[in-house]
Amino acid sequence: MKLAKPLQNLIDSFESLPGIGPKSAQRLAFYLLHVPQENLECFAENLSSLKKNTVECSICFNISETDPCDVCSDNHRDKHIVCVVEQAIDILAIEKTGKYYGIYHVLHGRIDPLNNIRIEDIRIKQLLDRVKKGGISEIILALNPDMEGEATAMYLNKQLKTNLDSVKTTRLAYGLPIGASIEYADEVTLTKAFEGRREY
Amino acid sequence: MKLAKPLQNLIDSFESLPGIGPKSAQRLAFYLLHVPQENLECFAENLSSLKKNTVECSICFNISETDPCDVCSDNHRDKHIVCVVEQAIDILAIEKTGKYYGIYHVLHGRIDPLNNIRIEDIRIKQLLDRVKKGGISEIILALNPDMEGEATAMYLNKQLKTNLDSVKTTRLAYGLPIGASIEYADEVTLTKAFEGRREY
Repeated sequence: MKLAKPLQNLIDSFESLPGIGPKSAQRLAFYLLHVPQENLECFAENLSSLKKNTVECSICFNISETDPCDVCSDNHRDKHIVCVVEQAIDILAIEKTGKYYGIYHVLHGRIDPLNNIRIEDIRIKQLLDRVKKGGISEIILALNPDMEGEATAMYLNKQLKTNLDSVKTTRLAYGLPIGASIEYADEVTLTKAFEGRREY
Repeated sequence: MKLAKPLQNLIDSFESLPGIGPKSAQRLAFYLLHVPQENLECFAENLSSLKKNTVECSICFNISETDPCDVCSDNHRDKHIVCVVEQAIDILAIEKTGKYYGIYHVLHGRIDPLNNIRIEDIRIKQLLDRVKKGGISEIILALNPDMEGEATAMYLNKQLKTNLDSVKTTRLAYGLPIGASIEYADEVTLTKAFEGRREY
């Protein structure tokens, strides 16, 4: 038995998404058969207008409806501190802390030669240009603590240090996540927690 | 910071799907920002045409492009045996075995009073009508082995037994799934495996 083509097409679309395997894709497509047509149309409209109705902020490259974005145009934010992130989604997590009052710079990726992402493919030049213009006192490198993230952060740090020595460069603290137990911590994290220990 | 509305809309659409929580929905929506517009349009088209270009087979209520469906119109299938399933997706799993040559009947649900699904909401009457017409010698009740599935199967069995005694009613075997270990089997499954033991 062959699946009906419209079903198979939708399964293929879902399967192309990250983290959705063949079984989940099937389950989602069959689920949507029981959903009213107007909800399907609404979902379809949301997909097709996602990129049409959003822009990249010309200052920080965050995804926004307006240019400049909400953060860059907010006069209450400290424009002297720039937090560099890999993806726009990382900003969401940082904003949720409610403790960061600076602005952002979205790289839209990280240097990753194995996946063919080179220095010029992400917004590194734009970051350096932004810093060169002046008015920035601290760059917080909030890249993911994995191999590619670390490599990209090291590269950025070197570029900033050689060209723009007056700007302070920092990175987020590494250590035990809150709520974790030492028993289950991996050795790299635990090493970092020892190295980064702070006096009471 | 508020998320751009087109992003938030798409996140809401993904979150309405079963098994996709707020974090996954965010991740999927942000992922799609990096996908070409034509792929988004294709995904959107697949969603909106899912129900427009499929029909329920008028014989077995499977989802199909044609009426009757591929299975019902296949002369090589044994029309005397009907396998009753809860959802069309269950047919996929059964067809994958390659061992079943009968036809199907999709109930599109199971009796579930807690979720307000009554006997008349699913295709039970249509099944009984189908059997009454004659030509069916065995009904295999392949409902899910959980409370609602069992209750629906029991109800169907009673209806078939009282009204149409000549038709044999069977259910799938319960027992240990292949590859499982007895050590981790739950007590109900293990009890069923003992009850259903077969002579070598």
